[in-house]
Amino acid sequence: MENEKSPFDTLDQGREIFIPNVSVDCIVLGYHDGSLKTLLCKFKVSESWMLPGGFVGKDEDPDEAMLRILKDRTGLDRVYLKQFCFFGKKTRTNLGEHEKILRELKVRPENGKWYMDRFISLGYYSLIRYDKARVTVREYEDVDWFCLDELPPLYGDHKEIIDTAVQTIRKQIGFIPIGYELLPEKFTMPELRNIYESLLNRELDRRNFQRKMLSIGYITPLNETRRAGAHKSPNLYSFIKDKYEEAEKYGVQIMSNNF
Amino acid sequence: MENEKSPFDTLDQGREIFIPNVSVDCIVLGYHDGSLKTLLCKFKVSESWMLPGGFVGKDEDPDEAMLRILKDRTGLDRVYLKQFCFFGKKTRTNLGEHEKILRELKVRPENGKWYMDRFISLGYYSLIRYDKARVTVREYEDVDWFCLDELPPLYGDHKEIIDTAVQTIRKQIGFIPIGYELLPEKFTMPELRNIYESLLNRELDRRNFQRKMLSIGYITPLNETRRAGAHKSPNLYSFIKDKYEEAEKYGVQIMSNNF
Repeated sequence: MENEKSPFDTLDQGREIFIPNVSVDCIVLGYHDGSLKTLLCKFKVSESWMLPGGFVGKDEDPDEAMLRILKDRTGLDRVYLKQFCFFGKKTRTNLGEHEKILRELKVRPENGKWYMDRFISLGYYSLIRYDKARVTVREYEDVDWFCLDELPPLYGDHKEIIDTAVQTIRKQIGFIPIGYELLPEKFTMPELRNIYESLLNRELDRRNFQRKMLSIGYITPLNETRRAGAHKSPNLYSFIKDKYEEAEKYGVQIMSNNF
Repeated sequence: MENEKSPFDTLDQGREIFIPNVSVDCIVLGYHDGSLKTLLCKFKVSESWMLPGGFVGKDEDPDEAMLRILKDRTGLDRVYLKQFCFFGKKTRTNLGEHEKILRELKVRPENGKWYMDRFISLGYYSLIRYDKARVTVREYEDVDWFCLDELPPLYGDHKEIIDTAVQTIRKQIGFIPIGYELLPEKFTMPELRNIYESLLNRELDRRNFQRKMLSIGYITPLNETRRAGAHKSPNLYSFIKDKYEEAEKYGVQIMSNNF
């Protein structure tokens, strides 16, 4: 899809290159500055923020489309990406917003017709390394990271999509080693705990958490601490890659959810 | 959708009434004769079995479409229905099979064109009372129930859809009170255990299972046994509806998965 240089081109050419009535949307989670954040975009002409998303080329798998869009958004190749559900209520598409966007981007009405219809969205979530992302912002949009508990006004059912993604991750948190994709190679136990606390939306006991995490066997303490100014230097840990991949593949029971 | 009297009409009129490139498919699970079974359909002209499915009307929510199709298939109204994922690989649609079906049903080529394209399927699972279903079979098809571990040859990626549904249920089995929708009002502990064993694909310890199930508090022993000929009469149990609905709604931790 070389001719897709910007969302302008996308909307203008969409009727020819995309499957009609189908979109993809992704909750992109990254860990930064002590909290879990999600990437959102907004057309300047619009009041509401949207999940990073787009459409599926006639010759693309939905996963390929989502990876293409995320690469375009974050500069990251082949990110950790999971399908989780779909969102298709007939009233979910905000045609008023679409009209504003088409007008702002000066798309000709006959070219924009496909965009003035209902869309069934295929929902994904992605866990990325915040520090490695290079977010693209175009002149007609805003892009920013938001904490999950401080979300701005969102387009259509995008709040529901985020909530469903978080619930899905929460249900599987005992099965997937969630921190691996989000944290740098060396991390502290409070950083890992923060991620679990953000997703579960509650505080976890510091000692219990550390004990359980170490007993699972996919994290190893390093013989290093991080320099932290006048503060006590926290110990550093790293993931054991083989163990992690096994857990991710077979969905082994890492811990019960009531830890 | 009054004009949709049969799949023949559906395929013939589909290009006007349905969203293009989108289908819905459902794993319908019912408990019968000591095992968990799933409902499958087959066009007589085809070798492979398909999940009960169909298409989404331009004015329908996907859930409404799936309920309409399941009512048509089983006679059951408003069944327990969950969205779980989507299936959209560009190679998943078997156009050879579609061509055979259109020919067999004598659909005119221009009317059948929409059916000769790729489809992204929205995946559902449904838990129903086997004894209450009245399955519809049309003259050009076969419909039957199959045990999960004895599935016949399946269309396209329908085996993958079934496997993904079972994995999804398995991951949530500690959160959803699975037997309620499947068992009659009064049931025995081995019947309930059978359902868990089918989904987890392994045997469970009889005593542990009974103890855990009773300790959760959504099942109550009745002061009744079932007549079972010369055999020892098994005790009967029933679900406590309020407790069940609470568990279903809030997804409370019913048990850890390693019971």
